[in-house]
Amino acid sequence: MNGNGILRAGRLELRVFDLEKSVDYYKNVIGLDVTAQDENRVYFKAWDEFDHHSLILQKSDSAGMDHMAFKVADHAALELLEYKIEQFGCKLSRISNRTRIAEGEAIRFQIPTGHYVELYTDIEHLGIATGSVNPDPWPDGLRGIAPHRLDHALLVGDDVKTTTRFFTEILGFKQSEKILSVDGEQMIGSFLTTTNKAHDIAFIKGPDAKLHHVGFYVDNWYEVLKAADILSKNKVEVEITPTRHGITRGQTVYFFDPSGNRNEAFASGYMTYADFPTITWTEDQIGAGIFYHRRELVESFNLALT
Amino acid sequence: MNGNGILRAGRLELRVFDLEKSVDYYKNVIGLDVTAQDENRVYFKAWDEFDHHSLILQKSDSAGMDHMAFKVADHAALELLEYKIEQFGCKLSRISNRTRIAEGEAIRFQIPTGHYVELYTDIEHLGIATGSVNPDPWPDGLRGIAPHRLDHALLVGDDVKTTTRFFTEILGFKQSEKILSVDGEQMIGSFLTTTNKAHDIAFIKGPDAKLHHVGFYVDNWYEVLKAADILSKNKVEVEITPTRHGITRGQTVYFFDPSGNRNEAFASGYMTYADFPTITWTEDQIGAGIFYHRRELVESFNLALT
Amino acid sequence: MNGNGILRAGRLELRVFDLEKSVDYYKNVIGLDVTAQDENRVYFKAWDEFDHHSLILQKSDSAGMDHMAFKVADHAALELLEYKIEQFGCKLSRISNRTRIAEGEAIRFQIPTGHYVELYTDIEHLGIATGSVNPDPWPDGLRGIAPHRLDHALLVGDDVKTTTRFFTEILGFKQSEKILSVDGEQMIGSFLTTTNKAHDIAFIKGPDAKLHHVGFYVDNWYEVLKAADILSKNKVEVEITPTRHGITRGQTVYFFDPSGNRNEAFASGYMTYADFPTITWTEDQIGAGIFYHRRELVESFNLALT
Amino acid sequence: MNGNGILRAGRLELRVFDLEKSVDYYKNVIGLDVTAQDENRVYFKAWDEFDHHSLILQKSDSAGMDHMAFKVADHAALELLEYKIEQFGCKLSRISNRTRIAEGEAIRFQIPTGHYVELYTDIEHLGIATGSVNPDPWPDGLRGIAPHRLDHALLVGDDVKTTTRFFTEILGFKQSEKILSVDGEQMIGSFLTTTNKAHDIAFIKGPDAKLHHVGFYVDNWYEVLKAADILSKNKVEVEITPTRHGITRGQTVYFFDPSGNRNEAFASGYMTYADFPTITWTEDQIGAGIFYHRRELVESFNLALT
Repeated sequence: MNGNGILRAGRLELRVFDLEKSVDYYKNVIGLDVTAQDENRVYFKAWDEFDHHSLILQKSDSAGMDHMAFKVADHAALELLEYKIEQFGCKLSRISNRTRIAEGEAIRFQIPTGHYVELYTDIEHLGIATGSVNPDPWPDGLRGIAPHRLDHALLVGDDVKTTTRFFTEILGFKQSEKILSVDGEQMIGSFLTTTNKAHDIAFIKGPDAKLHHVGFYVDNWYEVLKAADILSKNKVEVEITPTRHGITRGQTVYFFDPSGNRNEAFASGYMTYADFPTITWTEDQIGAGIFYHRRELVESFNLALT
Repeated sequence: MNGNGILRAGRLELRVFDLEKSVDYYKNVIGLDVTAQDENRVYFKAWDEFDHHSLILQKSDSAGMDHMAFKVADHAALELLEYKIEQFGCKLSRISNRTRIAEGEAIRFQIPTGHYVELYTDIEHLGIATGSVNPDPWPDGLRGIAPHRLDHALLVGDDVKTTTRFFTEILGFKQSEKILSVDGEQMIGSFLTTTNKAHDIAFIKGPDAKLHHVGFYVDNWYEVLKAADILSKNKVEVEITPTRHGITRGQTVYFFDPSGNRNEAFASGYMTYADFPTITWTEDQIGAGIFYHRRELVESFNLALT
Repeated sequence: MNGNGILRAGRLELRVFDLEKSVDYYKNVIGLDVTAQDENRVYFKAWDEFDHHSLILQKSDSAGMDHMAFKVADHAALELLEYKIEQFGCKLSRISNRTRIAEGEAIRFQIPTGHYVELYTDIEHLGIATGSVNPDPWPDGLRGIAPHRLDHALLVGDDVKTTTRFFTEILGFKQSEKILSVDGEQMIGSFLTTTNKAHDIAFIKGPDAKLHHVGFYVDNWYEVLKAADILSKNKVEVEITPTRHGITRGQTVYFFDPSGNRNEAFASGYMTYADFPTITWTEDQIGAGIFYHRRELVESFNLALT
Repeated sequence: MNGNGILRAGRLELRVFDLEKSVDYYKNVIGLDVTAQDENRVYFKAWDEFDHHSLILQKSDSAGMDHMAFKVADHAALELLEYKIEQFGCKLSRISNRTRIAEGEAIRFQIPTGHYVELYTDIEHLGIATGSVNPDPWPDGLRGIAPHRLDHALLVGDDVKTTTRFFTEILGFKQSEKILSVDGEQMIGSFLTTTNKAHDIAFIKGPDAKLHHVGFYVDNWYEVLKAADILSKNKVEVEITPTRHGITRGQTVYFFDPSGNRNEAFASGYMTYADFPTITWTEDQIGAGIFYHRRELVESFNLALT
C-alpha cells in the first residue's frame, strides 16, 4: 500500500472475441477459477487471491484492455484520490454499485496514454483456496499454469512522462525503473509500483490506449518452465520462451490468449521500497533491459499490441 | 510502506562474544560486506541493499539482540510516530546524530516484550552492488550464502497480545498470521508486516527480551540448498535442515552464528496486503505451522534463545 | 547396463499389512499406477517406466522386502549369470513363467546378507505415459509425488564386504562409494551401481535380511519440496525432511509407508562410470555422508528397519 | 558402458582461431580448468571429471571439430572394436602414445558423415575438485558456468542412417530417439547413447563433417538460468535462450564460442536403458522436438555450423 492507500492492481478487464474459447483458455490453460458470469462477461480469480475476481473477460469485436483497476484501502482514501485526479484534469466518472458482479462503486478515469483506469474499495471476499485457518501452502486440484495472482500490466502510449507524473504525484506510486533515450531527454519506458513489488503497472512508448501484456505471478523459475511446458502441450503460441528480464530481474515467458492479448507468466522480481533510487536504463541497452539473455528486442514484441 | 510511513526492517544490532570470529562468519559464510567499523562495532550490508548497513555487530559478554530498527520515510512521519509511541506509554529516548556511523538521529523505545526498537530515517546511501544504471541482475564475486537483504526477526516475550496491538495500532503494521491457544484465548505467536512481505517482525510467547532468530532473504529453494551446503562446508551447526514453513509458506534453513545467535536463510514467503484477513493457526497445529514437513516442534527450537 | 548385461533395478516386492490402505498410499500419495492385481498382490509402475511393473505389494503379516529384482538384457546373459551365481555358492531357484503377472521365468537366490534377489529378462511392455512418438516431456493427470521410476534400495546386513564382492565380481556391478571404519578394516556401507547412476542397490551394516528403504526418483530439488509438501498434506510421517546426501550428492526426503517400510524421494545424484575411483567415507564422517547438512545421524534412521 | 566397453564421450577437440581469446572464454565463461598446453593446443577438464582432459582447443584457421573421442574400458575392448571398425570399412589409423599430452595410444577413423572419431583407454587421472575421500558435493572457487562435464556433441552429415547403423551395430550404442521424414522413409536425426544418458552423440542431416554443437552438463534448470545470466554478463551471443527440448526432455541454452563453434549448457535429460524403445519424432513435429516451447525451428540453428 502506498501513502495514498492504493493496495494493489486488483483487477483487469480484457476484451475477447470468442467468450467460450477464452473462458476455456483462462480456466484450463492459465488455471483461474470462474467465480461469476453474466451475458457478456465472465469473472475469474486465481487460487491465491482473496477477492471475488481479478480478471473479467468481456465479449467484444476487438481485443484489448477495457480498463485496469486498483483496489484502495477505504472510502476516505478513495474520495481523496478522486479529488486529486479531477484536479489533475482527468475526466472522471462513477461506476455505480453492482455494475459489476460482487463489486461496489468505483471511479473511472482516463490517463494521459488514453487507457481507462478505475479505483474501487468494495468487493466481495471469497478467500483463498487453502483457507485462512491452519492452511496448507498450496491447494489440491490446481489446473494449468495456476498463477498465484494477477500481477501487473504493461500498457503502451505516447506520453509516458506525464503518465508517470500522474501515477507518482497523484496516485502515490513509486517509479522503480525507467528507460531513457540515450540523450536522457525522453522517457521511453516507466515501471511503477504501489507495493513492494518491482512493478504493478508499466508504460512503454507507442500508440495510445494499447495493451502490451497482462502478467500473472508464478512462484519461481521452475514454475516458468512448467508454464511454458503447459503452453506447448496446449499448442498455445509462445512468443518469448523462458528468459530473464534485466528490468525487475524477473523470470518470464510470453504468450497470447485466443484473441491475441499477450499474457505473461512472471516470477521472482525483486522487492523495492519507496526510498530506493529509480533504476535507469538507457535506450541503447533496452535489449538487455527487456530480454536479459538475448540483449536485443524481438520485432513481434513491439508490434503485437491489442 | 505502511500508512504510518514505516518502510521496512532496516537494521538490527546483535551482541557477539568474539568480534573477529563473528566478522569472519558474517562476511564469509553469510556473505555480507563490511561497510564500517569502530572499536566495538562492525557494520555490514548485503549486496542488494542500498543503505549503508543493515546489521551491526557489537562486542559484548552476552549474545542476543541489542535492538531492531525500522526505517521511516521522512522526518514528519518519524515525529508523528514518536508522539504516538509516547502516548502508548513506551519509554522513549533519542539517539543522537552519528552515534552510529553513517546514521542520523533515531528514536529508541522499549516494547512490551522488553526488546528495544528504534525508528530512523537518515542513513547514508551506498547503493547496491550491481549499480542503478543498466544493472545486471546479480553482481560478480558473491561470497557465501550472499542473501539479498536482512529480512525479519523473530523475538520472544510474554505479552504477545499487547505487543501486537502496539505494532498494529501505533506503528501501523498488519498482522499477517497469528497462533492462538486451542480455546482461542491466548495469542502465542504473532507475525507482523509493514510491507507486502509475509513478515518483517514476529513474536512468540516465552521469556521476555529474547531473540529467537534473525532472517536473511535468499531468492528460492535452490538458494536454501546452497545455503545449507555452504553451512556444512564451513562446519556451521545447522539446527533445522531445509524445510518449508506453514506460516508464511517460506522455505528455510536455521543455524547459529559463533555466539549462538540463531540465523535463518529464508526464501519465497507469500505477498500479503493490508486487506487480507489474518491467517490463524491453532496451537495444536503449531508443529505444521512452524515446520510444515515435520509437523512437530523440535526441542532446541524452543530453548535456544539469546 | 554393466558388462554382464544387467540393465537396472527393475522391480521390488514389498510385504505390507493392509493391502487396501497400502494401495491407496502407493497410488495416491506416491502416485504410481496400478497395472494388475491378484488375490494377494498388487502391481504398480511409475508413469515414466516402460515395463509392466516395478513395484509389487504382497499382503503379509510382516513388513519388509520380499525380494529385489534386476532386469537382464537377454537370456544368454541370464544363463551366464545363473552359472556364476551358483559357482559363488548362492542357493538358487527358478521362478517359473507367469508366477508373477506379465513376467516370464526368473532366477532367485539369497545373497550373503540374507536378502533374496532375482534376475529376469521377460516382462510385458506397457510403455510410458507420454508415448513413444512425438512425446510431451510429461503427461497430464499426474497424481501425488509422481516419481519417474523405482530408483534403488538400501538393504541392511552383516557381511557388507562379501556382498560387495558378490555384486562386483559375480554380477558386474561397480562400487561407487564405500564407508570404512576409521582404521580402514571394516566395510560398513557399500553403494553399488549397474548403470551410470550413483547407486542401484546399497548395503549398510546391521541385522541381516532387513530393508532400510526403497528410493523413487524425482527430477530435482523442487520436486523433493513438492514430495515433502504432499506427504505433509496427507499426514504421512516424514522422518527426514529435505536435505542432501554427501554420498551420491543426491537430494532426499525420507518417510514411511503405512506398514512402516521406509520410502525415499531421491533426486539428482551424480553420474558415475566404471573407471571412476570408488569414493571413500570414513566412519567418523558418516554423519556428513548420510545427511550432509546435519552432519550427524538420526537415531530412528538406524533403528527403523523392516 | 555399453556391451562393447565404450564408457563415455571422453573428449573432443575443437579448432579455434584465436587461442588466447578462446582459452579465456573456456576458462572464465564456461569455467573449465586448463590442465596442460603445448604450442598449438590447450587442454581442459571440468571440475567434476576425473580424467586429465575432456576438451582440447587447437589453434587453426578454420573453426569446427577436429575429432570426438570415446573412452573404452580396456585394451581388449579397444582391440575388438578396432577389428570391427575395420571390418565395417572405415579407414583407421593409430595415434601413437603421448601424441596428446597425458594420453596413451588411440585409434582414429572416419565415420560415414565424414567426422573423425577416436577411441582410447589410457589417460592420466587427475581426480575431481572435491577429492575422493569424504567429498563435499561441490568445490569452492567455481568460475563461470562451471559444468560438471563434457556431455555430448551434435554432428551434421548426410548419411544419418548408415552412421546410426555404425554406432549401434559396430560400436554398440543404443539409438534413444530418431527423427523421420513424415513418410517414414528418411532418417533426419539420430540420438545415440553409450550410457544411461539420453544422448552421448547425435546426428542431424546436413552437409558432411560439420559440428552443430558441443554440450556441457549443468545440474538443473536454475543452473541453465545461471549459465544464461553469465553469458549475458560476458556479452557472449546467446542464440537460443533457456528452453526445453522435446527430444531428451533436457533443458538448454545455446551460444557461441569466440570462433563461432556452438556450445550448449544442457541439464536434466532423462535416463534411458538398452531395452527402451527408440522414441520417434516425425519431421512435421521437429520444431517441438528441438524447441519444445517454441514448436518451430530457428533459421540460425540450421545454418550456423562449423
